[in-house]
Amino acid sequence: MSDLKNDLLIRVLKGLETERTPVWMMRQAGRYLPEYMVLREKYGFFERCQTPALAAEITLQPVDIIGVDAAILFSDILVVPQAMGLEVQLIESKGPILPAPVKTEADLNRVRVPNVDETLGYVFDAIKLIKQQLNGRVPLIGFAGAPWTLLCYMVQGKGSKTFDEAKIFCYTQPVLAHKLLQMITDTTIAYLKGQVKAGADVVQIFDSWGGLLSPDDFENISLKYIRQIVHALKDEVPVIIFAKGAWHSLQSMAATGAHGLGIDWCITPQLARQFARKDITLQGNFDPAKLLSPIPVIKKEVRDMLKAFGRGRHIANLGHGILPNVPVDHARAFVETVKEFG
Amino acid sequence: MSDLKNDLLIRVLKGLETERTPVWMMRQAGRYLPEYMVLREKYGFFERCQTPALAAEITLQPVDIIGVDAAILFSDILVVPQAMGLEVQLIESKGPILPAPVKTEADLNRVRVPNVDETLGYVFDAIKLIKQQLNGRVPLIGFAGAPWTLLCYMVQGKGSKTFDEAKIFCYTQPVLAHKLLQMITDTTIAYLKGQVKAGADVVQIFDSWGGLLSPDDFENISLKYIRQIVHALKDEVPVIIFAKGAWHSLQSMAATGAHGLGIDWCITPQLARQFARKDITLQGNFDPAKLLSPIPVIKKEVRDMLKAFGRGRHIANLGHGILPNVPVDHARAFVETVKEFG
Repeated sequence: MSDLKNDLLIRVLKGLETERTPVWMMRQAGRYLPEYMVLREKYGFFERCQTPALAAEITLQPVDIIGVDAAILFSDILVVPQAMGLEVQLIESKGPILPAPVKTEADLNRVRVPNVDETLGYVFDAIKLIKQQLNGRVPLIGFAGAPWTLLCYMVQGKGSKTFDEAKIFCYTQPVLAHKLLQMITDTTIAYLKGQVKAGADVVQIFDSWGGLLSPDDFENISLKYIRQIVHALKDEVPVIIFAKGAWHSLQSMAATGAHGLGIDWCITPQLARQFARKDITLQGNFDPAKLLSPIPVIKKEVRDMLKAFGRGRHIANLGHGILPNVPVDHARAFVETVKEFG
Repeated sequence: MSDLKNDLLIRVLKGLETERTPVWMMRQAGRYLPEYMVLREKYGFFERCQTPALAAEITLQPVDIIGVDAAILFSDILVVPQAMGLEVQLIESKGPILPAPVKTEADLNRVRVPNVDETLGYVFDAIKLIKQQLNGRVPLIGFAGAPWTLLCYMVQGKGSKTFDEAKIFCYTQPVLAHKLLQMITDTTIAYLKGQVKAGADVVQIFDSWGGLLSPDDFENISLKYIRQIVHALKDEVPVIIFAKGAWHSLQSMAATGAHGLGIDWCITPQLARQFARKDITLQGNFDPAKLLSPIPVIKKEVRDMLKAFGRGRHIANLGHGILPNVPVDHARAFVETVKEFG
């Protein structure tokens, strides 16, 4: 922390005073950047993830081009199922495919808790290189998918609006489901500890599909495992949980000891603060589709958002990943409006 | 109302005493029923909707086979965009396609507020036939899509997880968007009034994509128009609003004067009641994927749900449509558990 020139993100997560609200954007290293598209056309998805020089170049692009207050590792949550022994195909613009998903006990026997240095060492190498190249300009956020969200893909085998097959797996084969969730949890703890050892300053847990579960199921199928991850990491680095749509459990998520909670745009900052209580940092919650609005509208709406959150304990971000068709100057307007707000 | 042998649904929507909680299921006339699959293999989707004898047969199937306390018209929300002049293709198992969606002012000029008797008279004919065949056994629910949800399809041109193009249309071309929303609203009011005139005892407004909007946008883009529909209908028949995921606006939806509010499984009945206040009937909220659980588990979870809602002002239902792979005896177990609960 001491060798970071911009440590706004770290300080706000620790509840310390900051001169202004820090800002970054989910998927900020992504398809809206022409510089990213050049690399995307030349290299396959896993080639970009697994080649530290490419992952580093992509991770740094938004820091240089957009001026965000944090870098986030360029990778994908599905590298974990891959390391656990499942084949993962990432076909551009089509979403992930896992050709041999987990449906039965026999399938589960194909899955292992791997040695992360052997299977995910390329991520740690990328982090070391990114930290060198960042040279303390901004902190680096590492990340992993939440166990429930990874189970969704490992069971359903592909993207889905509702992940019914994953839910049915949990409801009809609970013993297998909890065994798999624990294996993912154990892998994720080792993976995130490896990221921190390599240099990640903060970690974020993405529970993209947490909002598909009822409040009770969210506790039993998702938060129970996220809690283990938070407990294992929170004394090493600040931890952010982003369980999209799981507004009903903000209070229990805050009680894990996490330092930050991501929220989407479908809850007002005021209500999120009321649910999460006061001693935690909130991150969000601009509707990504609004970045297509004209720049003056973006600026006004960003200021409205900042006013609604109030000063302190807030990280400005989108409520979900930036869309590929956002003009670069719109993304920059988002970031600059936060910086100017003071 | 007086000639209904089972008027539980009507009474609970009017806040009157009932012997027990009424029960029906969204998409109860659907693919999980072998009797429906026979007709689905013989006739195209719009043929089934547009042939009153087929629509009536399908509408009555779950009343006969599952024993629900209400019939719901077999149709689709996209018959309205079709009547408004847009081509709609419903390819089985692939979802809807609108090959020429609305993107510009010129596109909007292709859209009209139609004479509903001319364009949707087949629905009114189906309702008359259904009412004859029901012969007062249970009430008939008519329905329409909410204007925002219909705009989603009319602009995006197909299903989507996030309907970004529809949102961007609203954010970047608000004048056109509101013009289209008002045209859909005017058509829907005439359409639902026609359904009531033909015999519908209750109407439900489906805002399947209301939950994609921020609370402010939900008010401006969706609820503003739903409110007009409720106001036009509520003195004729009980009105239910089901805005999936729009938990944050339960109080404003209740304030429209609607008689019932549908909720999904991602909010507890207790919190929904707190948000919606006391003088409105809540409908829901069983997770459809849980109907794949073993029958004893279904029975237990249904009883837990009924206890959580408490007696009175509750219609037992799923939190979304029944899944095609639910065994018929599981659907029947859902209905019977409600009936036995007393």
